[in-house]
Amino acid sequence: MEKIRLGIIGGGIGSYIGKAHRIAACMDENYTLIGGIFSSTYQKSLELANNLNLDTKRIYEDIDSFIKGELALPEKERIEAVTIAVPNHLHYEIAKKLIENKFHVICEKPVTNTSIEAVELEELVKKNKVIFCLTHTYTGYPMVRQLKKLIEKDMIGKIQRVHAQYYEGCWNPFIHDKESRKGIWRFDPKKTGISCTMADIGVHAFNLIEYVTGLKVTSVLSDLNTLYDDNPLDVDGTVLLRLGKNIKGFLAASQIATGEENNLQIKIYGSKAGLRWEQINPTYLYYLQDNKPLQVLKPGYEYTSKFSVSSTRIAPGHPEGFFEAFANLYKGAAKAIRGQKIEEGEFPTIHDGVRGIRFIEAVVKSSKEGNIWVSV
Amino acid sequence: MEKIRLGIIGGGIGSYIGKAHRIAACMDENYTLIGGIFSSTYQKSLELANNLNLDTKRIYEDIDSFIKGELALPEKERIEAVTIAVPNHLHYEIAKKLIENKFHVICEKPVTNTSIEAVELEELVKKNKVIFCLTHTYTGYPMVRQLKKLIEKDMIGKIQRVHAQYYEGCWNPFIHDKESRKGIWRFDPKKTGISCTMADIGVHAFNLIEYVTGLKVTSVLSDLNTLYDDNPLDVDGTVLLRLGKNIKGFLAASQIATGEENNLQIKIYGSKAGLRWEQINPTYLYYLQDNKPLQVLKPGYEYTSKFSVSSTRIAPGHPEGFFEAFANLYKGAAKAIRGQKIEEGEFPTIHDGVRGIRFIEAVVKSSKEGNIWVSV
Amino acid sequence: MEKIRLGIIGGGIGSYIGKAHRIAACMDENYTLIGGIFSSTYQKSLELANNLNLDTKRIYEDIDSFIKGELALPEKERIEAVTIAVPNHLHYEIAKKLIENKFHVICEKPVTNTSIEAVELEELVKKNKVIFCLTHTYTGYPMVRQLKKLIEKDMIGKIQRVHAQYYEGCWNPFIHDKESRKGIWRFDPKKTGISCTMADIGVHAFNLIEYVTGLKVTSVLSDLNTLYDDNPLDVDGTVLLRLGKNIKGFLAASQIATGEENNLQIKIYGSKAGLRWEQINPTYLYYLQDNKPLQVLKPGYEYTSKFSVSSTRIAPGHPEGFFEAFANLYKGAAKAIRGQKIEEGEFPTIHDGVRGIRFIEAVVKSSKEGNIWVSV
Amino acid sequence: MEKIRLGIIGGGIGSYIGKAHRIAACMDENYTLIGGIFSSTYQKSLELANNLNLDTKRIYEDIDSFIKGELALPEKERIEAVTIAVPNHLHYEIAKKLIENKFHVICEKPVTNTSIEAVELEELVKKNKVIFCLTHTYTGYPMVRQLKKLIEKDMIGKIQRVHAQYYEGCWNPFIHDKESRKGIWRFDPKKTGISCTMADIGVHAFNLIEYVTGLKVTSVLSDLNTLYDDNPLDVDGTVLLRLGKNIKGFLAASQIATGEENNLQIKIYGSKAGLRWEQINPTYLYYLQDNKPLQVLKPGYEYTSKFSVSSTRIAPGHPEGFFEAFANLYKGAAKAIRGQKIEEGEFPTIHDGVRGIRFIEAVVKSSKEGNIWVSV
Repeated sequence: MEKIRLGIIGGGIGSYIGKAHRIAACMDENYTLIGGIFSSTYQKSLELANNLNLDTKRIYEDIDSFIKGELALPEKERIEAVTIAVPNHLHYEIAKKLIENKFHVICEKPVTNTSIEAVELEELVKKNKVIFCLTHTYTGYPMVRQLKKLIEKDMIGKIQRVHAQYYEGCWNPFIHDKESRKGIWRFDPKKTGISCTMADIGVHAFNLIEYVTGLKVTSVLSDLNTLYDDNPLDVDGTVLLRLGKNIKGFLAASQIATGEENNLQIKIYGSKAGLRWEQINPTYLYYLQDNKPLQVLKPGYEYTSKFSVSSTRIAPGHPEGFFEAFANLYKGAAKAIRGQKIEEGEFPTIHDGVRGIRFIEAVVKSSKEGNIWVSV
Repeated sequence: MEKIRLGIIGGGIGSYIGKAHRIAACMDENYTLIGGIFSSTYQKSLELANNLNLDTKRIYEDIDSFIKGELALPEKERIEAVTIAVPNHLHYEIAKKLIENKFHVICEKPVTNTSIEAVELEELVKKNKVIFCLTHTYTGYPMVRQLKKLIEKDMIGKIQRVHAQYYEGCWNPFIHDKESRKGIWRFDPKKTGISCTMADIGVHAFNLIEYVTGLKVTSVLSDLNTLYDDNPLDVDGTVLLRLGKNIKGFLAASQIATGEENNLQIKIYGSKAGLRWEQINPTYLYYLQDNKPLQVLKPGYEYTSKFSVSSTRIAPGHPEGFFEAFANLYKGAAKAIRGQKIEEGEFPTIHDGVRGIRFIEAVVKSSKEGNIWVSV
Repeated sequence: MEKIRLGIIGGGIGSYIGKAHRIAACMDENYTLIGGIFSSTYQKSLELANNLNLDTKRIYEDIDSFIKGELALPEKERIEAVTIAVPNHLHYEIAKKLIENKFHVICEKPVTNTSIEAVELEELVKKNKVIFCLTHTYTGYPMVRQLKKLIEKDMIGKIQRVHAQYYEGCWNPFIHDKESRKGIWRFDPKKTGISCTMADIGVHAFNLIEYVTGLKVTSVLSDLNTLYDDNPLDVDGTVLLRLGKNIKGFLAASQIATGEENNLQIKIYGSKAGLRWEQINPTYLYYLQDNKPLQVLKPGYEYTSKFSVSSTRIAPGHPEGFFEAFANLYKGAAKAIRGQKIEEGEFPTIHDGVRGIRFIEAVVKSSKEGNIWVSV
Repeated sequence: MEKIRLGIIGGGIGSYIGKAHRIAACMDENYTLIGGIFSSTYQKSLELANNLNLDTKRIYEDIDSFIKGELALPEKERIEAVTIAVPNHLHYEIAKKLIENKFHVICEKPVTNTSIEAVELEELVKKNKVIFCLTHTYTGYPMVRQLKKLIEKDMIGKIQRVHAQYYEGCWNPFIHDKESRKGIWRFDPKKTGISCTMADIGVHAFNLIEYVTGLKVTSVLSDLNTLYDDNPLDVDGTVLLRLGKNIKGFLAASQIATGEENNLQIKIYGSKAGLRWEQINPTYLYYLQDNKPLQVLKPGYEYTSKFSVSSTRIAPGHPEGFFEAFANLYKGAAKAIRGQKIEEGEFPTIHDGVRGIRFIEAVVKSSKEGNIWVSV
């Protein structure tokens, strides 16, 4: 099968996330990296291009010359899909231009800094009939997909409680050091928008809830914490959630959870059973029933769903991790780009982006206006 | 050393909690069970008395005859301390009479159904100079005590986030069955007061937070869930907490967390480190630091505090559990009754009872009045 | 029901094991401690007797006066059962005298230092029709009993592999210090017999294998390690096991497993499924099947066997530990002493003692004679 | 940097291991796949070549035409390194031809079926100065490398006990089914050589022991189990190990450990501390000390060694798994092929292959000759 010609905007030398995108793209042999704009200077972009043995004619100085250059090529050579891995506040403009010129887009989250921009992109995606994949990576884990399928198959009954947390400790030392806080983009409202923690990690937990339950969060009431009075953005918060009549729960996100790794957890309780998953041990899915032994499900086994099995690449018992989850999104997007039938939930779309931004805006509003309920 | 003469009100044949109290009382050889009122009928009380080889003269029909009978005995023979293990709504009257007659009291939680009653008991305890031990059993676990001591010793720095949950699945089948719900006292406001889940298990999480942090919860904002419209009391809820300037967190309690055991967890994050403990694996205490290996502390080792070591009875590596934690409260109360010096936190007092009832009242008010902040 | 009158030989002030026996004896209200010989000096025995409010007339200077004194009492007052908690090399003589005088015996393991002595005791037990309970405490854990029952019910099919380990680190510092090694009885062949580690902890693993599988170890081949040339007894070893045609496995025991707690583990694999249990997390039993989710069983639930449920004392979700396991042996012995019907495996008997000593002798012989197979 | 031109022999359409090699090769952007012989038929090889957009001129019918064809090309275009992923009994001949023609080789384990062949290859590798990488994948895990480094840095003192197991359940149903056993190459001595389980998985555990300890296993005594009399090869076994004066231990491997995943575990105990790692949770490394809290180390943190950190690709807290470990071997081999300085242990060499085969031969001999010690 012809590989999809991929461009990348961002993710230059020394960038973790750039490398992660390239690994995810190569893993299933669906994409071939052609070029893009890797760094803020053309010279540095060329350097990475050389390391990767790319044709330097396909390296551009800015988004406009990228579009112009690629459109000038015959369709069979032209880059088809473009990964956006630049800082958040630059997503909107780049994505807009790419979509309007019929490039498929694979975009880091959050999709934009405001829901107005996100909604605009959503409409453009529809109008231009391109594929837009938002990298909420955690939805790519096989056991997250299994969790989703078990709920779909009514294995837990009617949902009655939702519990999600995303705790992280790595920024804690910086938060406590006023000087170093100044130099970091995530603590700067000009670059990161109205929220730090909720936009960075809280929205992943939000996305996961809607992904696995199939429910929509209808309204939120939040209490955010900036920890220091001179710190403008939230570094911690708890959000009460309502997802329908008598379906309640919460989402907690914190970057002052000292010593925690990327501790994203989700627990969904239904009338018949409960399910629990956590990102730091992603190959374990816990199925809890009344008066029955706890069941621990693992990836790749026949007893899991087809969707989950197809999200693994090797025999059971060989742990897969973050890159493989990431690659599952690229794999889903490749199917969509090629016009193949995809499973519901194979990759997050622009609509997930819109939901995410609306969640962030609602959470910030609720906390600012005195912990009131705000609809999402 | 002379053993303390113990009476028990409640906990008759077939009662789990009665057996638990007797085990806790016997474990450290500080108490000798003399008599009491075990069941609602005298005949059944006598039956248990016979099983236990007790002198049936020390078995009474009601609290008044208990008091009269015991006061008639010489002080050296008289029951000194009385365990109250009857349903919640009967605590107040029995406790009041015992305290006024100078009996020490060991009482099941919640101490009373209203804070007015609890405060009255608190004043009586002070006036009559008796010992009052409230059985918040979880404070008796060695690793909970170690957690408390690590915070006291500034091992985590300034507290910045508090996270507590108490999830239970065993009542879930009954909650979904309208008929069986009717017959159970915990779902009946006449017997259990204004709250089901928060009063039953949420208050344990609340007590644990205040116990280990040494902080007071200043205000709460809650969202409770009755699940069914015809169910009068909460079976689930999340409570936002404030414990001082920029110290926030939450407490979640649920009896619709299907498949969960007594899953009480507490996580406290400070500026320097975090601590995590969970009741279903009570011999593990997790100490989390930035960029350092996770440390797992266990009971009985020299590296733990004196208070924690003295709360174990055997060499490290021999798991102890719920009864041993329970016995630690009895042990602390025995020291207090004998006028010995006790460690801060060796057993919960009537004041913990007052705090607990105030918490329950505040949580219910917050949820009823539209999820507003209520001070505790 | 009349309580069983209990005496204790050994376990004086400051003794962990003495306290453990008293806790185990009191927990189910079947025994009442009457007297015994607690310490090597009469004066110290009296001291503990006073602490425990015992009648000092029932405290004796030596085993002969104990027997004489008790036999002189009317049968209804006489001590019925006697716990032996003195050093190993004293077990034989005391047990022999007690059995010959019709006292029931509850004895610490190893029952004796040689199999000749053990066999003699076994015959005396039969002849005198007394109950003899050997405290292989680990067989008292509810999930060990559940493991046994699952095998009995053919839940794993035909047994095909047996794996047991008992690793301990607490003696490691002493083993490396020649001077301190000298003063410790367990490293002294005169007191502890022909083996240190195998007799101390290896035999527990051996007992557990035979207990849960219902199979007999037919022969062993071992390789023991003394670590230092001037250390006479084993501190570490691995034992190959044969339990029947094509049923093989091993048992590893080590007191130089630095940093390990009492890490006793057992894994039994059958043609259909496997089972795993470990003492440091005794409330978890793992049931492994091909291509099915792992199941985690916990104590007290209806889905476990009657025998397992009856070995717990409180509702599921309240962890029980070592003392409760110990008390289950006392409970079983009480039923036997009272002539009630007991479950197979409710407590280890003198026959388990004989098997254990034979195992130790076979293991030592195999290693000494050049790692050859020795039948048990 | 110029990418290394890679060929693959084996691993055609539908092959797990072929895909794993390609993922491992692409992950660090050091290799570019050029061609090879993917399947037993030329037509099927071409099919995969087309799927992967490879130049079909670089697809060959057999090893001789591969060598001839590639040698005919200018050196700058010629395939430099070749992955061997065909069944075991074909390794020797293919590897020999490749080495003699100066191709670097990346070879699946076991390197050959006899130690005579392995030694011959070792000599050829030396003579022809090519790089030979044997894919003992587990040595690529960051925490295995950390374990190795901690031992090197004397963090556990002198090694005194070694414990390794590799338990697997996936073949269990086939082993019990005589008919299906016949059709599987691993149970057929003609294809798999003198051993099934020890050659397949036992040797991984053996390799891991020598890798992390830096010690050599000097002699073995084994007891293997074929389970059925009509089954010619071992499916289970335990091996006693000696690694020097008073350094003992064992290795257990089983393919009748029903329900187990790829449960490879290693525990190394030294005079000062112990270390424990298991493959099914590969991001956890346990460091056990006497009387100190257990430490849990995780990948990517500054507190781990440079070697370990350089074996991860993303920030801490993002789980990596089997493919990433595999890719670490490819990364090490790439450095060696390019003549860069490599860390000791960056990839297993032909010498590890020789050791492995010698281990297998010794183990089989020991068991066959009556469980005697055989030197390795």
